[in-house]
Amino acid sequence: MVEDRSPKPIHGKAAVCRAAGEPLTIEDIVVDPPKAHEIRIRVTCTSLCHTDVTFWKAKGGTWHFQEYQDTKRIRCDHCGSCTSEHSNLCDSVPFIIGPGMRRDGTTRFWDAQGSPLHDLLAVSSFSEYTVVDVNQVVKLDPAVPPKLACLLSCGAGTGVGAAWRPAKVEPGSAVAVFGLGSVGLAVVQGAKMCGASKIIGVDLNPDKEEVGRSFGVTDFVNPSQLDNRSVIEVIVEMTGGGVDYSFECIGVPSVMTDAFRCTKMGKGKTVVLGLGRDSDQVCLPSLELLFGRCVMGSLFGGIKPKTDIPILAKKCMDKELQLDALVTHELGLQEINTAFDLLLQGKCLRCIIRMDKDK
Amino acid sequence: MVEDRSPKPIHGKAAVCRAAGEPLTIEDIVVDPPKAHEIRIRVTCTSLCHTDVTFWKAKGGTWHFQEYQDTKRIRCDHCGSCTSEHSNLCDSVPFIIGPGMRRDGTTRFWDAQGSPLHDLLAVSSFSEYTVVDVNQVVKLDPAVPPKLACLLSCGAGTGVGAAWRPAKVEPGSAVAVFGLGSVGLAVVQGAKMCGASKIIGVDLNPDKEEVGRSFGVTDFVNPSQLDNRSVIEVIVEMTGGGVDYSFECIGVPSVMTDAFRCTKMGKGKTVVLGLGRDSDQVCLPSLELLFGRCVMGSLFGGIKPKTDIPILAKKCMDKELQLDALVTHELGLQEINTAFDLLLQGKCLRCIIRMDKDK
Repeated sequence: MVEDRSPKPIHGKAAVCRAAGEPLTIEDIVVDPPKAHEIRIRVTCTSLCHTDVTFWKAKGGTWHFQEYQDTKRIRCDHCGSCTSEHSNLCDSVPFIIGPGMRRDGTTRFWDAQGSPLHDLLAVSSFSEYTVVDVNQVVKLDPAVPPKLACLLSCGAGTGVGAAWRPAKVEPGSAVAVFGLGSVGLAVVQGAKMCGASKIIGVDLNPDKEEVGRSFGVTDFVNPSQLDNRSVIEVIVEMTGGGVDYSFECIGVPSVMTDAFRCTKMGKGKTVVLGLGRDSDQVCLPSLELLFGRCVMGSLFGGIKPKTDIPILAKKCMDKELQLDALVTHELGLQEINTAFDLLLQGKCLRCIIRMDKDK
Repeated sequence: MVEDRSPKPIHGKAAVCRAAGEPLTIEDIVVDPPKAHEIRIRVTCTSLCHTDVTFWKAKGGTWHFQEYQDTKRIRCDHCGSCTSEHSNLCDSVPFIIGPGMRRDGTTRFWDAQGSPLHDLLAVSSFSEYTVVDVNQVVKLDPAVPPKLACLLSCGAGTGVGAAWRPAKVEPGSAVAVFGLGSVGLAVVQGAKMCGASKIIGVDLNPDKEEVGRSFGVTDFVNPSQLDNRSVIEVIVEMTGGGVDYSFECIGVPSVMTDAFRCTKMGKGKTVVLGLGRDSDQVCLPSLELLFGRCVMGSLFGGIKPKTDIPILAKKCMDKELQLDALVTHELGLQEINTAFDLLLQGKCLRCIIRMDKDK
């Protein structure tokens, strides 16, 4: 008798969001076998970032978690954007579609009652098993610890990538990083990796000075302690005309404007990483723009995952990039709501969810 | 007896602005000999651009013609910006200083009564003779016709340069140019020179379609004739997702926003060339910025004059770049107020002032 080796549905635990903003429930779910061009994966380790909070809280509109599609991890390798060095967003998948797998729009997740569960951003890693498109998978050297690998796939990759790819920070340059949360600290590490000689951290929280310096910040500015001087004046003075690069890692329009205005005339580049509200506008004095400044946004730090994540993983292994200190907590899947609380209360940098921790 | 060969003051005619917005007066003036690091030049040919109108009209504030300094033509070759490929604004000269020569702040121009005359932008080419800093002079192959050379030094150089240098338009790309005045038409030529395959001209004046096509526009959009559809929708549809590059050549904040919004997600670049009012703000939906778009300003098209103008002059001689059609009028210095009128009334593209024409 021939053994049936066709792939079967698999049972596992997952954190499910039943209502926006409500605690996730840990449920036994069924994960379908992968279809063509898909891979079913056992998740050992994942981490939370603010994007998870954004979608978890979303109650409709552009950010409704059922209607948003993440293109940042997609790469077909064939379209104009995938083959261009300038874009990390694939053309072949339109930006907003309903939930479901990338190629046929159906789900691979089912709850205990047999009802479909929607994926989040075509990844859904808060689950012991998940199914993703082959275009969304990066194979790494098995020597890379999963705890490190899962950082590179989102927030830390975004920060390091922004300094490295879209900004292309040059050796010897001056950089300002607005907001020293985990993305901002990753930008600091990215700027240091690129050889920046002056890295100014800007944060309202005085405790961020010490942590900032441990990541590579050389100068710290607290905008609330400047005796009526603006952060722009102070940074322009500190750098003799402005920084070469600034990064906004908070998502506040007025800070985006400040980040822009403290850059050097003729060549200043500002990268916006912070996700604000849907209706936010960033306003720039047009004359200051005209004088050779540049503002850019980037999703996932402009990184092309398949090629860039292995490079960053190697830099981490070689200690050229030091992201370990970003991990402040490790919890099991059962404790995922605690992880959300830590993030919401600003009490963690990165919190790792380890699937083996409950067992 | 030894001949006295030391340089002497020289007499010549010049167009002088005695009051903001009033007709220039043609006066006999005295031009001092050059001091160290300066060159006295006989002007044979020059041309007007909108910057001349802006300064001529200025009645105070940032743009007062006595208090503004043009850094765009300065290049010391030694500072961080001059040695960087990313900036064409020299660090060694601060942005706003009073009138006068770059190194000592004094003037070389005197009127018939012996009173000093202020220079404009450290160039003052509406004069038979002028004195400029050596850093502001570019030596060209004598085969380049002066009529062509004088175009490259400002508006046409700005337009061509914006496509070539800051935007770095790639072969096969799609481009939108908002405003088909002379700078916009020069952008069209620059984009064509770089190999753009689709060049969409946008202008409210239907007559611009024909002239635009003669410069290289492949598609024309008149925002007033779109049956309630926005120019953004139309351009995104025409290009299957947005243009790779857009250029704002008018100086209107809402048009800057339109130019930004019609670019492709993930890689769209917008270059702002139009000079608006001092207080203008360009507002960008931050979420649309975040999705990998970029907005940049450029003065003088990001060109480094000493190295880039000779390259562009050669491209013109080789017919790779065709700017001749920009010259719609040629007048003598005596007729300079007519040239201002033509520009103000939108009746010319480039008007050349030929010093030999009155004689």
